[in-house]
Amino acid sequence: VDFQSIIATRRDGGMHSREELDALAQAAARGDVPDYQLSAWLMAAYLNPLTPQETAWLTLAMAESGDRLDLTGLPRPWVDKHSTGGVGDKTTLVLLPLLAACGLTSVKMSGRGLGITGGTIDKLASIPGFRTDLSPAEMKEQAARFGLALTGQTPALAPADKALYALRDATATVASVPLIVSSVLSKKIAGGAEKIVLDVKAGSGAFMKTLDDARRLALALRETADLAGIDVRIAITDMDQPLGRMVGNALEVREAIHVLAEARGGRFADLCLELAGLTLEAADLAQSREEGADQARAALESGAALAKAKLWFEAQGADPSLLDDASALPEAEVVVAFLNPGSEGCVQRVDAQIVGEVVVALGGGRMRKEDEIDPAVGVECLVAVGDAVVGGQPLLRVHARSEEQAAIAVERLRSAVTVVSEPVDARPLVFEIL
Amino acid sequence: VDFQSIIATRRDGGMHSREELDALAQAAARGDVPDYQLSAWLMAAYLNPLTPQETAWLTLAMAESGDRLDLTGLPRPWVDKHSTGGVGDKTTLVLLPLLAACGLTSVKMSGRGLGITGGTIDKLASIPGFRTDLSPAEMKEQAARFGLALTGQTPALAPADKALYALRDATATVASVPLIVSSVLSKKIAGGAEKIVLDVKAGSGAFMKTLDDARRLALALRETADLAGIDVRIAITDMDQPLGRMVGNALEVREAIHVLAEARGGRFADLCLELAGLTLEAADLAQSREEGADQARAALESGAALAKAKLWFEAQGADPSLLDDASALPEAEVVVAFLNPGSEGCVQRVDAQIVGEVVVALGGGRMRKEDEIDPAVGVECLVAVGDAVVGGQPLLRVHARSEEQAAIAVERLRSAVTVVSEPVDARPLVFEIL
Repeated sequence: VDFQSIIATRRDGGMHSREELDALAQAAARGDVPDYQLSAWLMAAYLNPLTPQETAWLTLAMAESGDRLDLTGLPRPWVDKHSTGGVGDKTTLVLLPLLAACGLTSVKMSGRGLGITGGTIDKLASIPGFRTDLSPAEMKEQAARFGLALTGQTPALAPADKALYALRDATATVASVPLIVSSVLSKKIAGGAEKIVLDVKAGSGAFMKTLDDARRLALALRETADLAGIDVRIAITDMDQPLGRMVGNALEVREAIHVLAEARGGRFADLCLELAGLTLEAADLAQSREEGADQARAALESGAALAKAKLWFEAQGADPSLLDDASALPEAEVVVAFLNPGSEGCVQRVDAQIVGEVVVALGGGRMRKEDEIDPAVGVECLVAVGDAVVGGQPLLRVHARSEEQAAIAVERLRSAVTVVSEPVDARPLVFEIL
Repeated sequence: VDFQSIIATRRDGGMHSREELDALAQAAARGDVPDYQLSAWLMAAYLNPLTPQETAWLTLAMAESGDRLDLTGLPRPWVDKHSTGGVGDKTTLVLLPLLAACGLTSVKMSGRGLGITGGTIDKLASIPGFRTDLSPAEMKEQAARFGLALTGQTPALAPADKALYALRDATATVASVPLIVSSVLSKKIAGGAEKIVLDVKAGSGAFMKTLDDARRLALALRETADLAGIDVRIAITDMDQPLGRMVGNALEVREAIHVLAEARGGRFADLCLELAGLTLEAADLAQSREEGADQARAALESGAALAKAKLWFEAQGADPSLLDDASALPEAEVVVAFLNPGSEGCVQRVDAQIVGEVVVALGGGRMRKEDEIDPAVGVECLVAVGDAVVGGQPLLRVHARSEEQAAIAVERLRSAVTVVSEPVDARPLVFEIL
């Protein structure tokens, strides 16, 4: 394969053949092409973006570059779910048991977090005993038995994506919509998905900071999925303020358990129900999203979702009684509140990016892949946009390892919340469904 | 240093600071930045070309990234010379003794050939005993004694250029004018040059295939040199047909010796005199190019240039009697002529690119850096554009290792020469002087 010529085609804005993209993906997967050629191609692809057809070919080529999960023979319809990532996004922890309770099968692979974006695997890793290294056979057995399995990403799936992804941060080529799209979809296809519900986040805590950018990504995901023959449903949802109350790994598990056990929980629970409705409709288990959301609410209120979560925790090695009493989860030693320094008013802004950065700085996230995570630390958001507050009221609460780290975090959080004197509307939760 | 941010600046078409380019060059020279980041930057620089000011800063940064040759204290004016490379370009072998005979000092570093572009060092390596690994002290001693020294490029000079240059072929980023300019000039500046005569080749055997492209490169060289404080004179010369009669390493040495010994030799000798005139004018040893060319012709005809060449050969380890009798140079075993397959007419075209490719295929050049060269093989061009020919007349002569290779070469050379019935003008030798 002549990689110089493949690079030159991209450089000159030409059209790749399917064979070229297959060759690129195969070579990237096997390490048969040096990183410096991949990164030259990535920069050329950043500046001369792949067409939708090329993106679909690359997606399929990367999906086929390694093992593929064979999910044939599962008893019930199944749908995969993916979020583009945000601050406080623990949706998967609630959504999977909820969907299983509604008759759906979920076999999901999740990633670790990087930067301000948390990873589901890190959240689960804060639960004592929870295994995230299931074999394909274990996943299928679990899914067949009670409709639900979640594991970490295996390097054997879509290894070409792994190779490209590893280079993109260092080469300033992350923010390319076609490259993002092919990375997201190739992993899902390699994981056996045929239907995918995508939660595209928009706002300060998301990769796409504006609704326009998020819409652009959503449309590209839709177009590429159509060309690749994958059925996707896409929700564009708010990530300008953190999702729900908790940000930080064990804190988010607590919040998810609270929603499952108490069947309530504000914006976070609402988003879980919205996404469940969309998923159930996609799986033909509901006539409409509204009907699907009603089914999900019923499964939450009846305790059916909680029961699935207990089976799940037990099957993957954790103590199911944690779902009744979460006190065995890690807790930070120091908890300090940040009080409203002004007078009464209305919350206009809780900046998800700043909250996310503070959690990383507290040790709750990674700046680099090799960083260790402290599962106990994080930030609690006691108010949301639109809430009325009085002077001196706690707005946020920092969970830290030490008084010193807590003080630094509180100082940085000053810029995260804006309180104004006039009334403010609550932010929409779901901007659009595609 | 944040290389991601330097890459992102180039990616977005921003302006680098001098400090950024210094940091890039230093890191490239020391191996402190991974190849995949350099190649992402190179592709970004290909697609968002450096401005002239950035090119000048990069040139100086690369020149300063390693050792610099200190030429202070040389007794006479000196000028460096560089050709952008072509097929049959053995000019340096004649020009250096010629300039030394005219009172100039030349201390030159030359490269090895790659692709159809021959390298002066490979040509000299075909001379038994000729050393091309002089130390800086040896170069200065030789230059002081008789005005002339030539050696291979040392990796200690402009190592940043070496690092970038090594990546450019594999990453399809060779054809960027600012990158070419900074590579050419940085090596010259690191080699101590303050005045440089540049021979920019235009035509099928050159990197720049058209006069427009060659002019673009020439203007960029001029603009960057001005900003970097280097005095350059630029000739744009023909490389659509091979330069002179011989192409191939020992064959070209023979032709150079012939010109020095016989003081004549057609287009090749003419170009040597033109460039010598330009150089002598640049060095203030002549009032005009014409006067300089006259001085050079006199030095050739008097035998003064031949005498300098004998001192040169002897000083660098070769037998100076080769200049009187070149029979000790390697000779190919098989010599086969390619005869005019048509009837009488006029030569319209001798394609330098095809001739160059045939010489590489015969073993006289390198496709990859690690290839071995056969010094004896090559192609003799018995006609030039504008020459009248008759049917069956020898047009080219192949010097090969075997009958089989010669036959393949002759077959490929069929497409290299076009003979037409109408008269054809000879091609200009020098298109422009800047």
